[in-house]
Amino acid sequence: MTDATANEREIRALLDAWAAAVRARDLPAILARHSPDLRMFDVPPPFESRGLEAYAQTWDLFYSVQHGPVAFEIDRLEIVAGDDVAFAVAHLHCADEDADGQPVPRDVRLTVGLRKVDARWTIVHEHHSVPTG
Amino acid sequence: MTDATANEREIRALLDAWAAAVRARDLPAILARHSPDLRMFDVPPPFESRGLEAYAQTWDLFYSVQHGPVAFEIDRLEIVAGDDVAFAVAHLHCADEDADGQPVPRDVRLTVGLRKVDARWTIVHEHHSVPTG
Repeated sequence: MTDATANEREIRALLDAWAAAVRARDLPAILARHSPDLRMFDVPPPFESRGLEAYAQTWDLFYSVQHGPVAFEIDRLEIVAGDDVAFAVAHLHCADEDADGQPVPRDVRLTVGLRKVDARWTIVHEHHSVPTG
Repeated sequence: MTDATANEREIRALLDAWAAAVRARDLPAILARHSPDLRMFDVPPPFESRGLEAYAQTWDLFYSVQHGPVAFEIDRLEIVAGDDVAFAVAHLHCADEDADGQPVPRDVRLTVGLRKVDARWTIVHEHHSVPTG
């Protein structure tokens, strides 16, 4: 990316810190930049989760099937940022575990919606998915 | 929604027209407000599609399994709009067909990313998915 704006740089740093918190299993850090009324579409059910408590539960579920080091790398990130509203689109390199507990790479599609609240970029929406067919 | 901004009203009308075009099987109208370098995450594979031609192919695939009236209703729409960047989050009431060609309701999660280009809201990203277990 050339000539990234300050907003894009801030959002990139926010997402990098979020992904690092996921890898570190640091739930308070994962939630640090999320809105209380976040709307989440996750890979597994439920169809939708609303609010920080429900969002935290999606991470409990994630960690329940992650026994070794956590794979969670952001790739092909594109950020479209205005002054107060932005969204980010990326791939996430994750991993499932097979029956022997060995990691099996799985990529996830990620869209994040953000709003600037009190001069801080805040995540108000996440959409994680894999294709189904 | 109370006190919708002009941007929100424009985006709501754009999405309503897009969904109506999907129901009408009107491909030019479906594509009318999309960026040439659109980035699409669809329900079925591929993992990602880039550009209008690849986006049109996702609709060919969609219609290949839709032989009767097309179900495609936007519900629970929320729009977060700045002056130049916006995103929208919703449910889509769709339908698959069973072995007898009868419709089976299926809901899809939808996130749309938009940018204002030459004073017109333009879709630059779509993310459609269902949860997977």
